[in-house]
Amino acid sequence: MLLYDSAVSGNCYKVRLLLAQLGIPYERQELSVTDRSARPAILGGLNPALRVPTLVLDDGRGLGESDAILWWLGDGTAFVPTDPWERAKVLQWMFFEQYNHEPNIAVARFWLHMLGAAPSQEALAEKQRLGYLALDALEGGLVGREFLVGGRYSIADIALYAYTHVAGEGGFDLGRYPAISGWLARVTAQPGHVTIDV
Amino acid sequence: MLLYDSAVSGNCYKVRLLLAQLGIPYERQELSVTDRSARPAILGGLNPALRVPTLVLDDGRGLGESDAILWWLGDGTAFVPTDPWERAKVLQWMFFEQYNHEPNIAVARFWLHMLGAAPSQEALAEKQRLGYLALDALEGGLVGREFLVGGRYSIADIALYAYTHVAGEGGFDLGRYPAISGWLARVTAQPGHVTIDV
Repeated sequence: MLLYDSAVSGNCYKVRLLLAQLGIPYERQELSVTDRSARPAILGGLNPALRVPTLVLDDGRGLGESDAILWWLGDGTAFVPTDPWERAKVLQWMFFEQYNHEPNIAVARFWLHMLGAAPSQEALAEKQRLGYLALDALEGGLVGREFLVGGRYSIADIALYAYTHVAGEGGFDLGRYPAISGWLARVTAQPGHVTIDV
Repeated sequence: MLLYDSAVSGNCYKVRLLLAQLGIPYERQELSVTDRSARPAILGGLNPALRVPTLVLDDGRGLGESDAILWWLGDGTAFVPTDPWERAKVLQWMFFEQYNHEPNIAVARFWLHMLGAAPSQEALAEKQRLGYLALDALEGGLVGREFLVGGRYSIADIALYAYTHVAGEGGFDLGRYPAISGWLARVTAQPGHVTIDV
């Protein structure tokens, strides 16, 4: 398999983390997250959104969307539950991640950590307001729980871990969130864990 | 089952459409999409994002995120494929919908159709630029295909149909998109179809 990848992208890191924990070998091809001019030529026909990660199977078929790739790789393994309700809850958390969490936390991090500045203070304040709401919701989902769904580590934890554990790079103070902090440590302690910079 | 609903929300309409096509009876409880002050009291404990739709089972368990609800209701029926690759492609299109399509097309529609005006011309222009990119990608995914995945109507079509068929209310010109236009007609012709205003 070939992974069109970005070393700094949390969305790509999700896929690298699961591939490592599944012990699946793959090739990485780095694409720029700032200069996207080559993407239509490279990713056209593989992923309608022209985003990374894009996974390409050995027979040439392409799959986009980080959380869809996690499902494709993980379903049938210990990383995706078998119970229908738990499966729906995994999807609920992954859609929450892409709608409420990533667009705020990842974008604030991209501005501050990658570009060095936000386009405006107002734009950054709005990303931080909405990002803290997402972190509040995540904290609520983790109080009294070891992991997000079914008491076991799953692709839902991978999906939410990716940008939460680097939220400090977007100006977020995770010290406010004891349940998130304990969960981050439990995710990091999973067998086969790799860091985002590997 | 109880559906916390909004009559004008395309995300809620997805769930109403699938419930109608599955012939599943349910209660509807309308929540405001402009005054959200009651949501923590009503949806807290049911859906971490405090959004509609939220589906509540008869035993009290709650599920959020429209596309996770479609999966929960549809898996095991003709509306979700059984082939693993086709299932991953359904998820790819639904994550694309929530990340690239809905935040631009639904928000432009909300501003123009519900509120009567956008907060600024710049904000509307940006939503329309990104919304057209999403429509371009959807058109590309439909050229030469009857439906998005596996040649059959599925929850991926329901997810993308919901806001695409009312994109004109957000100022988008669907006349540019012959593949989308043919697909919209095929979706509308499915047995048990109901409209957004039912």
